[in-house]
Amino acid sequence: MNVNGEKYRTIWVADDGESVEIIDQTRFPYAFETTLLRTMEDAAHAIRVMQVRGAPLIGATAAYGVALAMREDASDDSLDTACQTLLQTRPTAVNLRWALDLARRTLIQIPPENRKETAYKLAAQVCDEDIAINMAIGMHGMDLITEIAKTKAPGEPVNILTHCNAGWLATVDWGTATAPIYMSHESGIPVHVWVDETRPRNQGAFLTAWELGHHGVPHTVIVDNAGGHLMQHGQVDMVIVGTDRTTASGDVCNKIGTYLKALAAKDNGVPFYVALPSPTIDFTLSDGVREIPIEERAADEVNRMTGRSQTGAIETIEIVAEGSDVANPAFDVTPARLVTGLITERGVLQADRQAIATAFPERVRPAA
Amino acid sequence: MNVNGEKYRTIWVADDGESVEIIDQTRFPYAFETTLLRTMEDAAHAIRVMQVRGAPLIGATAAYGVALAMREDASDDSLDTACQTLLQTRPTAVNLRWALDLARRTLIQIPPENRKETAYKLAAQVCDEDIAINMAIGMHGMDLITEIAKTKAPGEPVNILTHCNAGWLATVDWGTATAPIYMSHESGIPVHVWVDETRPRNQGAFLTAWELGHHGVPHTVIVDNAGGHLMQHGQVDMVIVGTDRTTASGDVCNKIGTYLKALAAKDNGVPFYVALPSPTIDFTLSDGVREIPIEERAADEVNRMTGRSQTGAIETIEIVAEGSDVANPAFDVTPARLVTGLITERGVLQADRQAIATAFPERVRPAA
Repeated sequence: MNVNGEKYRTIWVADDGESVEIIDQTRFPYAFETTLLRTMEDAAHAIRVMQVRGAPLIGATAAYGVALAMREDASDDSLDTACQTLLQTRPTAVNLRWALDLARRTLIQIPPENRKETAYKLAAQVCDEDIAINMAIGMHGMDLITEIAKTKAPGEPVNILTHCNAGWLATVDWGTATAPIYMSHESGIPVHVWVDETRPRNQGAFLTAWELGHHGVPHTVIVDNAGGHLMQHGQVDMVIVGTDRTTASGDVCNKIGTYLKALAAKDNGVPFYVALPSPTIDFTLSDGVREIPIEERAADEVNRMTGRSQTGAIETIEIVAEGSDVANPAFDVTPARLVTGLITERGVLQADRQAIATAFPERVRPAA
Repeated sequence: MNVNGEKYRTIWVADDGESVEIIDQTRFPYAFETTLLRTMEDAAHAIRVMQVRGAPLIGATAAYGVALAMREDASDDSLDTACQTLLQTRPTAVNLRWALDLARRTLIQIPPENRKETAYKLAAQVCDEDIAINMAIGMHGMDLITEIAKTKAPGEPVNILTHCNAGWLATVDWGTATAPIYMSHESGIPVHVWVDETRPRNQGAFLTAWELGHHGVPHTVIVDNAGGHLMQHGQVDMVIVGTDRTTASGDVCNKIGTYLKALAAKDNGVPFYVALPSPTIDFTLSDGVREIPIEERAADEVNRMTGRSQTGAIETIEIVAEGSDVANPAFDVTPARLVTGLITERGVLQADRQAIATAFPERVRPAA
């Protein structure tokens, strides 16, 4: 999408044809910088420190991570080490496992001398597929937005609330939750986005606001506490969020706080949609609340806040009373019963086992 | 309650017998400082800039504000000006109106030469009544905590989630939501408090964590997004929050985000209690969501965050992408249907019109 008027993806092969370039998302929203990944370890580091984040982009970066490993050493050992190292960078992202499984399965069967080329092709294919999926999600989601727009007075925007960043910065391009928004905006349907700040890491205020702003989409940042009140007062027409992992039964694991917004949407008759690229579906899971392990992240994410001081310097400040304990669960699970629909690349589905299985029959595991 | 091992109230008459001393809550949690209010304007300023906050403490400060006005000029005009000025400092706090009505009604009937003394007596009485109310709330709420404690293994704490600061810093002493917690803690019942950070002003992380810490109550700070997840996993036994204004029908206006926690509590069978000093009940209101005007506060509360930098200096940083719009509704309304009970000074009530009217018959207005 657009940055300073130029079109970008979040990851691409650098000019040398083998290194990989990413947008360094830890510098947002104060600096727009790109970083070169030269080795598999660079790629693992980028995922670990969240220079790249978002399930689809993590998957793409992992695929390029394998390619970078093959560039250096195309042996079976190197392949195994790369897959193991990359898999351990983030426990929740199911795309990570999916991309690595695909790479390992494909590469182990071919002679080492062909692995590098194939690994790069695979990674490029992971990226292109992500974009194709997001554009399909965008088209299906745009239908939902269009239906709401028809009920509005001319020029009155469709108000869409989103949580965290499931924007193009979380994918290779277009985003998942934002794809319907960008496509609607591009096609002239007036949209306005309520952007949840998304504590503790502020991906909404830092990333979603930044990318919507650069692309010219009207939006308003709110604290995570405000969405329920806005819904009570008819100021939200629909919610669209992303997901890190969705069960075969439609339970949605996403950034901490998503569940609270889903409850408020249900309570106020506001449709709650999840933009769901199918690689994010984990067909091995049924009960999201019980089965999905929730990453407990560092207390400093809650204790501290980084931003720009009045002198323009990037400062980190402490924002919790001294000596207090802190807990920091990073995700929560929204039960399928609170989800109006899953916007997938194959259409908008009911959040239930049968609808998901019918749409993705090739992914369903036979019963044991 | 305790600060550095010494007992404090939040407001008291200074050593000169007429000026009023307060704890300057804008300096929390990095400095514990007191401020002298010498004039009515000082009192209005203290309320306006939130050196004092919390409905009961605002009421007490307003009552002392009238006394400070009478100290300077005990005329009818001065009384009217004082009441008008003080009333306009915060539109939502119903205690403010209640304390000012009481002062005006009482003082206008007596000769100006007696007004100063009476005004100080009235203010002291407002403070003592607040403490009496909070201790009564504490005792009734402690019963609820005790019942839960009986179901726990020995030594296992009762986990209580609270939002914002309805602690002793929001009152003259004990607090409302915290009174049951402090009393339980004092009587040896193990309690542990989940403290919502409470963006945008961080009253949880700054004030509630500070006061619980100083009093030795175990607690953990979480972001506002986390409570629903904790409830899904059985880590919250009950919620106790305060209120700025409650309708005759039991709808509860409190800090933005309270409604989301009430929804999560309902969804997980966690009892949701509101500590409700009766002056906070507004018997003129029936439908909280429709009738209670919600203060829209400055965008900078969302855009900026103040805390302690690594050098120890208090710094303010910007934390929203440049150029993005911001909205900042300060309160929301939790419908009575989500409230398990109102912990009042006269016992724990159902959140409905009849129970409230039965408990406070003298406050009920006759139908028009």
